[in-house]
Order: sequence, then structure tokens, then C-alpha cells
Amino acid sequence: MLQETLEQGQARTDSALDRLIPLVTQCPVSIHKAMRHSVFAGGKRLRPILCMEAGRMVSGALPTKIEELGAALEMLHTYSLIHDDLPALDNDDLRRGRPTCHKVFGDAIAILAGDALQTQAYEVLARLECPAEARVKMIAEIARGTGTLDGMIGGQVVDLEAEHTQPTPEMLEYIHRAKTAALITASLVSGGIYAGATGIEIKKLRSFGHSIGLAFQIVDDVLDVTQSSEQLGKTAGKDTAAQKATYPALFGIEESERKADWLVNTAFEELDGFGERAERLKELARYLVERKK
Amino acid sequence: MLQETLEQGQARTDSALDRLIPLVTQCPVSIHKAMRHSVFAGGKRLRPILCMEAGRMVSGALPTKIEELGAALEMLHTYSLIHDDLPALDNDDLRRGRPTCHKVFGDAIAILAGDALQTQAYEVLARLECPAEARVKMIAEIARGTGTLDGMIGGQVVDLEAEHTQPTPEMLEYIHRAKTAALITASLVSGGIYAGATGIEIKKLRSFGHSIGLAFQIVDDVLDVTQSSEQLGKTAGKDTAAQKATYPALFGIEESERKADWLVNTAFEELDGFGERAERLKELARYLVERKK
Repeated sequence: MLQETLEQGQARTDSALDRLIPLVTQCPVSIHKAMRHSVFAGGKRLRPILCMEAGRMVSGALPTKIEELGAALEMLHTYSLIHDDLPALDNDDLRRGRPTCHKVFGDAIAILAGDALQTQAYEVLARLECPAEARVKMIAEIARGTGTLDGMIGGQVVDLEAEHTQPTPEMLEYIHRAKTAALITASLVSGGIYAGATGIEIKKLRSFGHSIGLAFQIVDDVLDVTQSSEQLGKTAGKDTAAQKATYPALFGIEESERKADWLVNTAFEELDGFGERAERLKELARYLVERKK
Repeated sequence: MLQETLEQGQARTDSALDRLIPLVTQCPVSIHKAMRHSVFAGGKRLRPILCMEAGRMVSGALPTKIEELGAALEMLHTYSLIHDDLPALDNDDLRRGRPTCHKVFGDAIAILAGDALQTQAYEVLARLECPAEARVKMIAEIARGTGTLDGMIGGQVVDLEAEHTQPTPEMLEYIHRAKTAALITASLVSGGIYAGATGIEIKKLRSFGHSIGLAFQIVDDVLDVTQSSEQLGKTAGKDTAAQKATYPALFGIEESERKADWLVNTAFEELDGFGERAERLKELARYLVERKK
């Protein structure tokens, strides 16, 4: 079932992205080429798949056109990667085994391509085929999850500023929760809203997202230490080289893996109320935290 | 009446922006400082004021809390200025007489501050106090007006690519319409939607915005040639130095001013149906195109 979840989720997301991002033949050509270069660079579409599976769990079947919501989430994730890779930030030449956006199109177009993917995401969200009341709820949720206070940008800022310092465990947890877990949580919650979740169901999805999202980032940190660049599809050991704040640096590999496992179990308890309908999402979460270990 | 429109509009917008952007005491401190540095750098708040006056014209009185919509528009305008000023794009050290965001906070924080203002704008839009149906309509309108096809980012891309070339009049008109007129139009149209405008009223506001927005950018080009850096509050003659595509470069100053005047008259005809209620907006538009001439 996992293979089906991943493959169908990826295919659905890819086809929605292809429909929703202007073609490379549309003017101005360069920006659309740059947007598509980064969006179609072999991403696993984990956020869209989590969103779709949350929707499926809530309503019992995959809600119609929920992949368009997934595509908007992937646009936001990709915009953050493009800006994160810029020379002024992480200065990464390689992403998923391919040259990064600014290496191919230059810094100016990469900055604008990131901006444009954020803009396009909100246009897609505003036009989703569900009640307007649900659309504004999702937009507020997603903007908060990618914003400065406890969202993605806040995490990036603290991450940048924590380089070359010895971070406290509290600071590290803030970075991971904000930088990664917040958008993962927003993906799950918005999938639930799209499917018409009740207030209690949304609360459960939010707690589930907090735990799974943090576990996911801890595993990502561990993989950066234990795997080669070839296995990762990006430069390995970069976190250590940049003296980035990571779990393995602070707690060691074994303790980090234990923490991730504990978070997954905590997350699963949140889904008890959904009964058998939660199986797909649980299986997916287990996979996220066990990949390539 | 003009003075009142400008002063009250600016004060209302400033106080909404102050309420809606996180405080500099909120963590992470640096990003909120950077956002506020650029947002509170003495902007004239023309887009919010146009938005509010469009709303007032449609409903006969200033709609409650419309300044929050205005604040979101100003956040989007400011994000575009922060990114436009970066070394990778226009490389500007001075904006409204103050050092630009990246000069004070560095490129990384400036990129993230621009991103964050865009994010915050959509969160504000999603939470406006008007029917959800109106909110999603405004979000779609504003995202389109700041996007790649015929919106702000599209204009920036073609503008960048047209440097050091002899642009055609068609290309120049595309740049100006997309880079400037599109967000001005979205400001007017969203103000109308907020106030409950009919389809016909929205159509009129859109045509008015197209003409006024283009006239506004032509005047801006002319001022860059005819005024000093001190008068402008930014580096004068930069367009000429960068061999930017401008109206004066292509048509000369006198012809450019004639074109701007003609556009204003065309724009005014669109407002005929609103009768006396259009007076404030007309007066404002006249001011925009006659400032410091």
C-alpha cells in the first residue's frame, strides 16, 4: 500500500503542478523555465502526499482535486529551497542531484522564481474547488506555517544566526519545528480542512504534524552525517562543514534516532480516534522516519 | 480634500501596518527589524490610498477596516522593493533617502524579509473582516497582479532582460503595465471588491487602474531624468546609467508627459458612471501624475 501511496501521490502532484505552473513557452520564458527547473527536479512530493492522505483519512476517500492543494504546498516548499540555496544563504550548487536554480539561471532570476512560486501558490489556493470559507482557513494556516513567528522563515532565520555557535537544545528544537515541522503540519491540517475535518480532527492532525515533522528533520540531520552525497542527491556533510545546529551534533546519532522513534509513537497515538482509516498515513509516516536508515 | 485624502490615508495605513507586522521585540528579532525598516521608511502609501478611495467611491463611505487590505498591498509593494534593491538585481544602496534593507541587515536577511512580507500579506488578506467569498476573490486578483504572466514579477523579469538593449515600444509598455500598473490595478479592484462592487464597477476600476498605473510609471521615468537624488530620495539617473528601458529614453520627455496626460483623461472617462463620488479618486490620480512636474 505504501508504494501505491507514494507513486500515485507523486503522479497526481506532478500532473497538478504541470497544469498550474505557466508553460516554458509563455512569456517571460526565463522565469517559467527557472520555476519548472526547480519544481520538476525529482522531488518526492512528501508534503503534498501527507496533505492528500490527511484528506483521505478524514473523508474516507481521496477528495476531488485535493492534488491542487498539494501542488500549492509543493510550490511553497520549492520556493524556500530556491532561496535557501542562494549564495547569500546556504550557497548550495547541488539539489536532488541537479544544479540549483541560481547556478543555471543566475541569482536575479532565482530570487524572482522563488518569489513567483510563492505568489502562484496563493493564487492556486484562492481558486481551489471547495467552499471559500475553507479556502481562507487554509490560506491563513499555510501562511502562518511558512511565516516568521513559528513558521518556516522564522526557522531559517534562527538557523542562519545559529551557525558557528553552540545552540541550546531549545534553540535547536525551535529551528526544526519552525523550519520543517510547521509546513508539514500545515500540509496535514490543510488537507484535513479541504476534506471538511471537524475542530477536534484538525487538532489531532496538528499534534500529529508537530511530532512527525520534528522526527522527519531529525532523521534528515542524521542522514546528512551518515550518507554519501551520491545517496543523498545533495552535498553530504554540509551541516557539519557549516557548523549548522543539528541533532546528531548535540546528542549523537544513536540518541537522535531514539528521539525520532519516540516522536513517531507519540504521533501515532494522536490518530487512534481515526481507527483503520489512519493506516495509510501511519505507514507513510513510518516510512518517512525510517527511509534509508 | 487631497491633503486630507493623503494624510488620513497614510496615517490609517501606517497604524494598520504597525498592528499587522510582528514587533521588533518578537523572535526572531532580526527579521522583524528588517521588515519594519523597509515598511516604515517613509513610503507615501499610494497603493493603500488608491485601494481605500476605490472602496469609498463604491460604497459612498470608507468601508470599516479597509486599511488592513491597504496594509497587505503595501507589504507586497515593499517586498518587491527589498528584492529589487538587492545586489543581484538593481543593486541600490538608497531608497526613500535611507539605506536599503540589505545594506543594513545583509543579503540573506533582506531576501527572507521580502519573502516574509509576501507571506504576511496573504495571512492578512485571508483574515480580513469581510465575506470569505470576497477574500478569495481579492487574493486571486492580487496574486495575479503580482505574478509572472502580466503582473509585477513578469515586469521585473522583462525589465532586467531589457537592460543594455534597445527595447521596442511594445516591450516597454509590457514592462510598465506589468511591473507597476498591475499592482495599482489590483489595489483599486480589491478595494472595490472589499466594498462590494458589482461586476460592472469592477470592470471600470480595472480599466481606470490600467491607464493610471501606466501614467504613473511614465511620470516616474521622467522624474528619474529631470530630478536630483535629493529630490527623489533615491539615486537619480540610475535608469539612464543602467541603460534601463524608459519612456523618456524612447520618446523624449515632452512626448512622455503628453502620453501620461492622455492616459489620465482616458482613465477619468471610466469613472463617469460614479458621478460625484469619483471626485476624490480623480483628484488623487491627478496628483499622482502631476507630482513635482
